[in-house]
Amino acid sequence: MPGVPPARYAYLGPEGTFTEAALRQVPAAGRGDLVACAGVDVALDLVRAGEVDAAMVPIENSVEGGVSSTLDALTAGDPLMVVREVLVPVTFVLAARPGTRLADVRAVSTHPHAQAQCRRWLSAALPAARYLPAVSTAAAAAGLAAGGDADHDAALCAPIAAERYRLDVLAEHVEDNAGAVTRFVLVGRPAPPPAPTGADKTTLLVHLPQDRAGALLELLEQFAARGINLSRIESRPRGDALGQYAFSIDCEGHVDDARVAEALTGLHRVSPLVRFLGSYPRADQVRAEVTPATTDEAFSRARAWLQRLREGRP
Amino acid sequence: MPGVPPARYAYLGPEGTFTEAALRQVPAAGRGDLVACAGVDVALDLVRAGEVDAAMVPIENSVEGGVSSTLDALTAGDPLMVVREVLVPVTFVLAARPGTRLADVRAVSTHPHAQAQCRRWLSAALPAARYLPAVSTAAAAAGLAAGGDADHDAALCAPIAAERYRLDVLAEHVEDNAGAVTRFVLVGRPAPPPAPTGADKTTLLVHLPQDRAGALLELLEQFAARGINLSRIESRPRGDALGQYAFSIDCEGHVDDARVAEALTGLHRVSPLVRFLGSYPRADQVRAEVTPATTDEAFSRARAWLQRLREGRP
Amino acid sequence: MPGVPPARYAYLGPEGTFTEAALRQVPAAGRGDLVACAGVDVALDLVRAGEVDAAMVPIENSVEGGVSSTLDALTAGDPLMVVREVLVPVTFVLAARPGTRLADVRAVSTHPHAQAQCRRWLSAALPAARYLPAVSTAAAAAGLAAGGDADHDAALCAPIAAERYRLDVLAEHVEDNAGAVTRFVLVGRPAPPPAPTGADKTTLLVHLPQDRAGALLELLEQFAARGINLSRIESRPRGDALGQYAFSIDCEGHVDDARVAEALTGLHRVSPLVRFLGSYPRADQVRAEVTPATTDEAFSRARAWLQRLREGRP
Amino acid sequence: MPGVPPARYAYLGPEGTFTEAALRQVPAAGRGDLVACAGVDVALDLVRAGEVDAAMVPIENSVEGGVSSTLDALTAGDPLMVVREVLVPVTFVLAARPGTRLADVRAVSTHPHAQAQCRRWLSAALPAARYLPAVSTAAAAAGLAAGGDADHDAALCAPIAAERYRLDVLAEHVEDNAGAVTRFVLVGRPAPPPAPTGADKTTLLVHLPQDRAGALLELLEQFAARGINLSRIESRPRGDALGQYAFSIDCEGHVDDARVAEALTGLHRVSPLVRFLGSYPRADQVRAEVTPATTDEAFSRARAWLQRLREGRP
Repeated sequence: MPGVPPARYAYLGPEGTFTEAALRQVPAAGRGDLVACAGVDVALDLVRAGEVDAAMVPIENSVEGGVSSTLDALTAGDPLMVVREVLVPVTFVLAARPGTRLADVRAVSTHPHAQAQCRRWLSAALPAARYLPAVSTAAAAAGLAAGGDADHDAALCAPIAAERYRLDVLAEHVEDNAGAVTRFVLVGRPAPPPAPTGADKTTLLVHLPQDRAGALLELLEQFAARGINLSRIESRPRGDALGQYAFSIDCEGHVDDARVAEALTGLHRVSPLVRFLGSYPRADQVRAEVTPATTDEAFSRARAWLQRLREGRP
Repeated sequence: MPGVPPARYAYLGPEGTFTEAALRQVPAAGRGDLVACAGVDVALDLVRAGEVDAAMVPIENSVEGGVSSTLDALTAGDPLMVVREVLVPVTFVLAARPGTRLADVRAVSTHPHAQAQCRRWLSAALPAARYLPAVSTAAAAAGLAAGGDADHDAALCAPIAAERYRLDVLAEHVEDNAGAVTRFVLVGRPAPPPAPTGADKTTLLVHLPQDRAGALLELLEQFAARGINLSRIESRPRGDALGQYAFSIDCEGHVDDARVAEALTGLHRVSPLVRFLGSYPRADQVRAEVTPATTDEAFSRARAWLQRLREGRP
Repeated sequence: MPGVPPARYAYLGPEGTFTEAALRQVPAAGRGDLVACAGVDVALDLVRAGEVDAAMVPIENSVEGGVSSTLDALTAGDPLMVVREVLVPVTFVLAARPGTRLADVRAVSTHPHAQAQCRRWLSAALPAARYLPAVSTAAAAAGLAAGGDADHDAALCAPIAAERYRLDVLAEHVEDNAGAVTRFVLVGRPAPPPAPTGADKTTLLVHLPQDRAGALLELLEQFAARGINLSRIESRPRGDALGQYAFSIDCEGHVDDARVAEALTGLHRVSPLVRFLGSYPRADQVRAEVTPATTDEAFSRARAWLQRLREGRP
Repeated sequence: MPGVPPARYAYLGPEGTFTEAALRQVPAAGRGDLVACAGVDVALDLVRAGEVDAAMVPIENSVEGGVSSTLDALTAGDPLMVVREVLVPVTFVLAARPGTRLADVRAVSTHPHAQAQCRRWLSAALPAARYLPAVSTAAAAAGLAAGGDADHDAALCAPIAAERYRLDVLAEHVEDNAGAVTRFVLVGRPAPPPAPTGADKTTLLVHLPQDRAGALLELLEQFAARGINLSRIESRPRGDALGQYAFSIDCEGHVDDARVAEALTGLHRVSPLVRFLGSYPRADQVRAEVTPATTDEAFSRARAWLQRLREGRP
């Protein structure tokens, strides 16, 4: 966020989830007010209403869902813009009330998606423990903290939840596949995008021209013809009928890059609807590989040449 | 399912969800044993292990998630094949213990996705009621049935859950958007696909050739070049790194159609991995529009012509 | 030609050919000096040197060749620009000295290409006549006019040649296929193109990016992606090696049309060399069919939208 | 040519041209009867009529034209097939009657295309000599040989013409651009093509599906999608109207190669007309670069995989 840091941030709650961990990576958030919300749509509506300055929401590979909701909520109401992306490693701890030993654990609670990601470890370390589904990983941790009447005596949760609820960590990195990452975005109200850095992403929602063979192809050609890689593409249902799609797309580059600008205008011409959801620096800072034919300079030289043709000076 | 109907079916539980409603549409399931499973992966592993004959799982637009899990679980282990698709209207009821009146309702429980889909109705009909998240819509209904200690006094759930738990329906069709549909598939072990009907779908998982501009384009051209519409396409992350994708695809047509066969062999040639997940009749029975250049007859004539060329009889 | 009509015109001679007939269609040429040249390259070099104001040369389907030479000569030296196209029906007469009757004809002379186009008529009408090849149809006619020692007593030539050499027309429309047309272009020195009319053509020479599968495809996509039809495309060898190609292209539209402008800048970016050879009204005045996505207005709206995105007003 | 060498060959005459030089490269022609023809169509009709076994005709970059005629004549009547290609360096000599010295030359005759290719040499070596156009380079040479009444005293012609007419060579390699090559093809009646060598070409005539943006693109995609390079592509007018095109194409590979076979059947499906004109070894013996996705083995593996899918063994 350029300028003065926002004072208030919403995020997909509850407290103690990976989304809060993502928000903690934004330096200005350390000095701001943080509002945990019951849904991505609630968080984004607070931004739209001006009650917070920005919201942190998951957009890709979230442990606890919300990703599809994010894609839909971003585009369902007044315009919003992504201003930053944050990556959070997906790692779980087994947390319990202080004093609990691993051998004492009889029942483990967590969100079903988290349970699925730690199944091998659970089988090996706690073969006899029961599993109790929770609405979120943080809720499982909070249940332990809150009082004495939980049905479970350990929670699989994010490290931040153990910290927040002052639980003991009985085991770390209990996920079956190390290295997974969830991607979050910080979303604000419309404003000029942050300046290009050479390692940027642009997020779009594009409705398919029509429901026919080749419509998606035509859409993708707008990118390929300008040498633009896509880093994410997902179909989203439109409205109520199956088979009517929009595509949520992250492409490399910035709306201020000439190749991205021409691709965007191409999409605008061929699609019934294009929603621009922001250009912002990539969290991994990987610079786009730009072919010689699609540099800003190549576009600029081509336009100068065109101008000369029109003036009769080929 | 060809031959004698399977005796045992798994499905994504708990009982009383839309998935059970989908399974109830399969005539043979009425006479079979039904096994509710805690996850899509669990249900599919029962099929793989031969403990059930088939499993019903959501594959598109599910209310309670599971769709991404389905796409991943279908391809993560031994081969499976989709043999049938079923569409279930997404409609919710507000259910309560017998005798409860709408005016009595103080707290409503349901899965957060269901809550999001009924928000307008809830605001209008029960503006003062609290919302308590549940792990599933059926769990919210079951909580009412089970005993007297639930924190909520009404559940938003599928009609089948009200029926199963002998609850009163206080209101029907409380979803904000009528007409939504969830798509389920019945999955069995590998076998020759059901015969083509002219209104078929084929489900695939295709890994992208490489991470470069145009790789997805190249993949889609295999379909477009043979006039084959896609009815669903979704990117799925591969392994642990962001930005490495596979695509889950439903295309029109049957592996026995010449145009689909050529597209499949094209995909097999250019992709590092193609998983074939079945050809089966469309639930909506809409026949594919086949261009004159891509009928079985056009392929057959072209092959006969090629044969004549090779024999020196152009 | 904007402004005062040119006073001097070159054309591919000799006198009495279809090219002279084409030049006679240009009103201003009736008042100008006409210079018959021995080759297309000679005519175009007179334009380059400023010794004439414009040159008329065949560019498509010429009876007596010269078309390949035209394509090469247009691009081999200093820039030139096509400012007008002219269509001439390809029709032949059998001409002879006054007093000759058809029954008297023992030997017919003409250019071999013209002979090929009248073969059926010759077989039917003059089965016993010998054929003597000539360097041009006009030379065959001129040979009759010049004196008494020609080996032939009739010539197959353009109507204008019979007129010019005061020969009798023994038969008209003797070509085997009626309706053929040759296309000529009037070529001048670089200047701003004539204003767009909605029924325009643009002529280009484009070198292929590289000698690989798909290079030509990539080039053509620059047109197809903007809905631009090609009305002519011909491969021309580059330099001395077989298999190294440039493409001579006529596309619909004018350099001042937004869709043509974007296609041209796209070609400029991906090709090692693009020669712009003019935008000019079509002789047949057929207007281009422009899709809604490629009108000037669609481009203009897309650019305005892009500008709003960059300013943070999506 | 498989089997016993043909006894009779036609070629585009007159004697002493580059076409005869091309035919002399075919070993069997040394023992056969050679028939010089007045036109490419005449030569090919002799093949069709069975009066000769094969005909040698120019197909690319000919000095004296005939190339367009070849493309048209190959496809205008009963089917024919190219069985061999021959490359002939385009090099000219200045030939004169024995005893003539360069300083004696006052007038030079040759075909206009040859004159254009030697213009710089002529300006430098014979600045004062007049130029007299001839119907062919060989005719210019023959005129010197025939008797004493030629208007010219030297001819620019192929080396073979000087040899045949027993003329002195006053200068060799007088062409302005060294290294040019003309390509000829030997054409026979339909027969199974020569066996693939790994360095083959296939010649086709393909009518465009329709006159719209993208029709040519669609055609080229049939090749590009199978990794097939084109080594020649030329638009040919269809019938009598400008703007209706067929494309004459040489592609790399052989009709027996799986990738070429699939491209051919694809063309057959989408085009109103495809004429197959032969698969034959390349004169330059350059092997096609075949991508891993388009080898015969890749096609064969893909088909085996498809068969397994159909049998329920994915």
